[in-house]
Amino acid sequence: MTAELLKRVRDFTARELAGKDEHFDGLPEQPTVEAARLHGLGLANWWVPRQYGGLGLSLEESVDVVSELSYGDAGFAFGAFLPVLGGIMLQHFGDEALARPALEALVAGGGRIAVLGSEEEAGSELVRIATTFRTEGDRLVLSGDKYFSTNTDSAGLLLVLARSAEDAADFAVVAVPRDTPGVEIVKRWDLLGVRGAGTYRVRLEDCAVPAANRLGGSGLRILEAGLNASRILIAACAVGIARRIRDLAMEYAAGKRLRGAPLTENAVFAGKLGQTETLIDVMRNQCRAAAAEFDHLLAAAASGGTGLHRVGTLRSALAAKLFCGQAGWEVASTGSELFGGLGYTRDHPIGKLVRDMRYVAVVEGGEDIMRDLVYARYVVPARKRR
Amino acid sequence: MTAELLKRVRDFTARELAGKDEHFDGLPEQPTVEAARLHGLGLANWWVPRQYGGLGLSLEESVDVVSELSYGDAGFAFGAFLPVLGGIMLQHFGDEALARPALEALVAGGGRIAVLGSEEEAGSELVRIATTFRTEGDRLVLSGDKYFSTNTDSAGLLLVLARSAEDAADFAVVAVPRDTPGVEIVKRWDLLGVRGAGTYRVRLEDCAVPAANRLGGSGLRILEAGLNASRILIAACAVGIARRIRDLAMEYAAGKRLRGAPLTENAVFAGKLGQTETLIDVMRNQCRAAAAEFDHLLAAAASGGTGLHRVGTLRSALAAKLFCGQAGWEVASTGSELFGGLGYTRDHPIGKLVRDMRYVAVVEGGEDIMRDLVYARYVVPARKRR
Amino acid sequence: MTAELLKRVRDFTARELAGKDEHFDGLPEQPTVEAARLHGLGLANWWVPRQYGGLGLSLEESVDVVSELSYGDAGFAFGAFLPVLGGIMLQHFGDEALARPALEALVAGGGRIAVLGSEEEAGSELVRIATTFRTEGDRLVLSGDKYFSTNTDSAGLLLVLARSAEDAADFAVVAVPRDTPGVEIVKRWDLLGVRGAGTYRVRLEDCAVPAANRLGGSGLRILEAGLNASRILIAACAVGIARRIRDLAMEYAAGKRLRGAPLTENAVFAGKLGQTETLIDVMRNQCRAAAAEFDHLLAAAASGGTGLHRVGTLRSALAAKLFCGQAGWEVASTGSELFGGLGYTRDHPIGKLVRDMRYVAVVEGGEDIMRDLVYARYVVPARKRR
Amino acid sequence: MTAELLKRVRDFTARELAGKDEHFDGLPEQPTVEAARLHGLGLANWWVPRQYGGLGLSLEESVDVVSELSYGDAGFAFGAFLPVLGGIMLQHFGDEALARPALEALVAGGGRIAVLGSEEEAGSELVRIATTFRTEGDRLVLSGDKYFSTNTDSAGLLLVLARSAEDAADFAVVAVPRDTPGVEIVKRWDLLGVRGAGTYRVRLEDCAVPAANRLGGSGLRILEAGLNASRILIAACAVGIARRIRDLAMEYAAGKRLRGAPLTENAVFAGKLGQTETLIDVMRNQCRAAAAEFDHLLAAAASGGTGLHRVGTLRSALAAKLFCGQAGWEVASTGSELFGGLGYTRDHPIGKLVRDMRYVAVVEGGEDIMRDLVYARYVVPARKRR
Repeated sequence: MTAELLKRVRDFTARELAGKDEHFDGLPEQPTVEAARLHGLGLANWWVPRQYGGLGLSLEESVDVVSELSYGDAGFAFGAFLPVLGGIMLQHFGDEALARPALEALVAGGGRIAVLGSEEEAGSELVRIATTFRTEGDRLVLSGDKYFSTNTDSAGLLLVLARSAEDAADFAVVAVPRDTPGVEIVKRWDLLGVRGAGTYRVRLEDCAVPAANRLGGSGLRILEAGLNASRILIAACAVGIARRIRDLAMEYAAGKRLRGAPLTENAVFAGKLGQTETLIDVMRNQCRAAAAEFDHLLAAAASGGTGLHRVGTLRSALAAKLFCGQAGWEVASTGSELFGGLGYTRDHPIGKLVRDMRYVAVVEGGEDIMRDLVYARYVVPARKRR
Repeated sequence: MTAELLKRVRDFTARELAGKDEHFDGLPEQPTVEAARLHGLGLANWWVPRQYGGLGLSLEESVDVVSELSYGDAGFAFGAFLPVLGGIMLQHFGDEALARPALEALVAGGGRIAVLGSEEEAGSELVRIATTFRTEGDRLVLSGDKYFSTNTDSAGLLLVLARSAEDAADFAVVAVPRDTPGVEIVKRWDLLGVRGAGTYRVRLEDCAVPAANRLGGSGLRILEAGLNASRILIAACAVGIARRIRDLAMEYAAGKRLRGAPLTENAVFAGKLGQTETLIDVMRNQCRAAAAEFDHLLAAAASGGTGLHRVGTLRSALAAKLFCGQAGWEVASTGSELFGGLGYTRDHPIGKLVRDMRYVAVVEGGEDIMRDLVYARYVVPARKRR
Repeated sequence: MTAELLKRVRDFTARELAGKDEHFDGLPEQPTVEAARLHGLGLANWWVPRQYGGLGLSLEESVDVVSELSYGDAGFAFGAFLPVLGGIMLQHFGDEALARPALEALVAGGGRIAVLGSEEEAGSELVRIATTFRTEGDRLVLSGDKYFSTNTDSAGLLLVLARSAEDAADFAVVAVPRDTPGVEIVKRWDLLGVRGAGTYRVRLEDCAVPAANRLGGSGLRILEAGLNASRILIAACAVGIARRIRDLAMEYAAGKRLRGAPLTENAVFAGKLGQTETLIDVMRNQCRAAAAEFDHLLAAAASGGTGLHRVGTLRSALAAKLFCGQAGWEVASTGSELFGGLGYTRDHPIGKLVRDMRYVAVVEGGEDIMRDLVYARYVVPARKRR
Repeated sequence: MTAELLKRVRDFTARELAGKDEHFDGLPEQPTVEAARLHGLGLANWWVPRQYGGLGLSLEESVDVVSELSYGDAGFAFGAFLPVLGGIMLQHFGDEALARPALEALVAGGGRIAVLGSEEEAGSELVRIATTFRTEGDRLVLSGDKYFSTNTDSAGLLLVLARSAEDAADFAVVAVPRDTPGVEIVKRWDLLGVRGAGTYRVRLEDCAVPAANRLGGSGLRILEAGLNASRILIAACAVGIARRIRDLAMEYAAGKRLRGAPLTENAVFAGKLGQTETLIDVMRNQCRAAAAEFDHLLAAAASGGTGLHRVGTLRSALAAKLFCGQAGWEVASTGSELFGGLGYTRDHPIGKLVRDMRYVAVVEGGEDIMRDLVYARYVVPARKRR
């Protein structure tokens, strides 16, 4: 990425996101004014490949973009980068006739693609989902309830994970235009954090789309491949939030005295900030390394490689999300004590930052799921995997 | 304590507090209806000694009372037990003519005593406070700004820590009736948690009271002695909140399946709950041991001993607050991940419980202050203490 | 306990154990000279009830005794207190004719009773042990291999957990005199820590004893009851080791300067020691509370109650061992960094203390087993327990 | 690095280091037979630049080499890679006439360069060292005591940090041939871990060398620059040790059953291994990122840049050492409990691995020092740095 582009993102953050904690924490209407401004600057959906008219930033570059945006507001960042998940699925597993207009629309309109995977009963076990698709002539008809899905209301296109009504072992990802009859937003979730994004419960009732809207291959594998990108960028949010906490701490300490000396000179404070800065460095490097690995796979896939299907979930991506969830929580826990009594009030943003940080560990698979996946895929010898 | 009294508290919790998370989290008006009901049952200010008409429960017994109340709502519990801090200060350091009516009023009316110590600039270093008292004839006149003070608005009596305008080394605790001219509630804090209690910023402007309203001895020592009681009961709140999280987890797990088996049979879940239950046991035993030690000192003081002045802050009380803040946060952090996506929404109480739990570590001295006090008073050899 | 007795133990520690780290770390011959001296002072097996001629110290008092002894050497302490496990089993589940001479011998000779439970294959699952007993006339004949057993070589009496060769569901604890033909010490373990004690691998080959040597009731339940005592005292060792680390740290810091000031005045050092002292206080209170609870049960059992069988493993005892293993390890981990480069050499005792501390978490059930037991017995609703 | 080179290192580890835990843990004579074999394969000092006849592997590549070697034995790895510290100092700050023969000798003979920095009194504060150099004609004469120095006895060249006897503010690094009269090995340290390396206490008594043996620039800055390399590779040792622990755990679990199922299928075990593998991934990526950054600086310096002096200690290198010390200790602590009772004996290598792992956190600056450096250099705003 030209450093110049990153600077533009940083300027946008300073100008449009900074100081609006209350606004973003208040479940702002979607799409937000700020999202429109990001688009106005030509920065929305920065990752869309150049062949579709996008800026074509790599996932590794996106790590820094997301770190900047989430420095401003993690919820805003979440909503802004999450289309990458559907975008990768479309580009690599959808027909060009399906993918091209969708990706070009993201560039032209700054819009969103949503992915609908999780369900209430199935929880994290997607193999147990109950949403079905059935074939009726040249159309696929989908029905089911989806639990958590971000950007859905304002998205143009929804990518829905469903299983065949005829063959329970056949999972598909199907592209469903948002305005398809039968798509119903049941509610917007009142989340604890990342409230700058919109996350919804959605019902699909006999939603009919052309059969060509099914992406190629197993739906579970497609989603798994795409989740590498979103998990890495979720992890990158922890970097941004942690940087914000660090800067707030230094700002606070500059004006605070302890035992007759500035707090900035206190050894315990120094140790906490040294640890925080260290974790920021490690989190960032893990996100970048995972993103670089995924970029490499995407490049290979774009030139005809089949690695993307085969590799499934990357160890480095799982490690990024798990580790940043943990290290981020360490930073947030330390931060939640740094600001004295004031830090326990809503007059200070730290409470919001702690709630925002929690999402890194919880969204798209909790810590236990990450550990299980790493173990099952990368520790158990291949011949013994079940 | 007769087990029967504790059972009444438990019944009160089940009947009057349970299921009202949203109510208590909404900064309910003070005093709350529920506080009135606790008084109606004769249970308010359960710790007031029998000689003042109270139930005379010991601090050790109070640990279990507070664990029960905070199982219902930690903010309610905080508001309900905090008068013990002022009560002990009054009883042990105030004239009988000052203490008796105040303590009898607590029993008769179920009211509150508030303590005003912390200030914005001084933070945790009370030796740096700026609130002053000056002598005018047979009256003391107080002026200053107090930062965090709980129950102040609805209290009958305020105990104010101030320093002499004439002699900066002379600290006093002065009893100021709430309706004294010049007492002004600046604002109610919009706290992150324990929002069932009322915590205020208060200004004192030339508040004049009889000179006899000064408690005997150094104000810093008086406050330090009293804080033993409130810190132990703050710690006890962690026990109640942790018990609630445990029960919510078991309730959730009973209806949740993972890999074809009830979640209650999952080994990782079992390990988390086993750890939680262990920490509950350890937290409770630490609170009880600290409370028993303080009860012993109070009894000795009541029979003329001077130990209370000399001993200052108890190691066991500091350890209770520090440890329960840490162990409670471990339980809350685990809990905040236990409930899947739902646990990251306001449809589930865990978010509130995490915010409530944080207060244990933050209020009446953060973790660093507890560690410093333990070190300075109990690790450094007596001859080398500064 | 008369404070005087505890003082005698402290004096013994200062005189006979202090400064002998290398000696105790060198797998000293068993029984050690120091054990003989403890007996010479009348302090060995301090817990033997008065009716058998012992000092009759309670388990709660034993917590402090063990804290003192393990301040000197945890391995020595382990060997010295472990007979309490067999002693309680004998007293409460054995015939008086079996128990009395054994307990009186402990007082008279300062000897040991060993318990042989664990096996290589079964690991922590005692229900899977393979050692058997078979009935031959009025004798029981035992055969099997026992993995870890402390004090065995120098003990007078061995209590062996075995299952009936005829009925796999019938577990027994059988008293086997050490000199019974067929008892063979296979090896002394070269343990990582607590090397002042002797721990052995033992083979039993057709060891015949009178049928009356079987203790009454299920062997698994008997052992479970007794383990409450030994687990609590293992936990108490963490208190002693942690106190030693604290004192070594203060000694080191007194002679060390950092940035021109004594290390004792450094805020980070102060924080570490404050945390250590806090954990010492919490560990001690948990051990005492668990011990007091078990003392209460033992007293009830001695007056004819049957609680001991029924209650099995106490939550507080499990919590003591699990928590002290964790908190002790936190103290040891901190300690292993406190002494700079010197602390990474054998010229300083901290390396030994870290190894000794590890045993608290490992012996008589690791952390996962403690958590599982707490969960299965105390968290799962009684009606759902398997 | 050609994968082939790395494979040769891995083969060497499997053939020459594996299974020799006891040998390396026994303070083997230096240089070891195995070091000679590594040299025989042409792999010793793999990092020496090609212009001096070396393999010229980058520091980033060295991370993987060290991970492999320390999988075999961390002490061996430490001794093998540590010459990089002196090598970089010589190459970048020494005259070509000084550097070339020394570096060529490393390649030709497989020997070592040692660095002598730390002293007993000064501890980690090198600015307080007492070793001096004085000018006598065209010679420098050094005197002083050095505390911890690795490879010194068998090294050909020693790089000594000393301060001018005339100007206390003038620090120098001076190259002293090992056979210079006055160089005396006082003792070999009996370290807790990494005992496969030789670490010494050394006295310098009037050691005279040519004045040209002084490296150019401030000695403190030279050492600081070089420490980037050694700290990163010390951190990389944690990766190798952690990988070894993981593999031992899987080997153990394959033959162990718990509750009737293989341990490899237990969810708690899976979680621990998943966490371990995650930390391995994160540690490795941090080491690689830091190494790549330092490689970049070295390349710039080699082409005439002056960055190396200016940049001093890299944030990423500090973060690598601090983080790998912490994450490695988490892995080691988990590992020390994974192997049941056997894991608490010397019959299993885990005890050695735990001791070896500790060195990552302790050597070349403990955790507090890393945090302080990160804070002072990278968190405090430049204008406020002292």
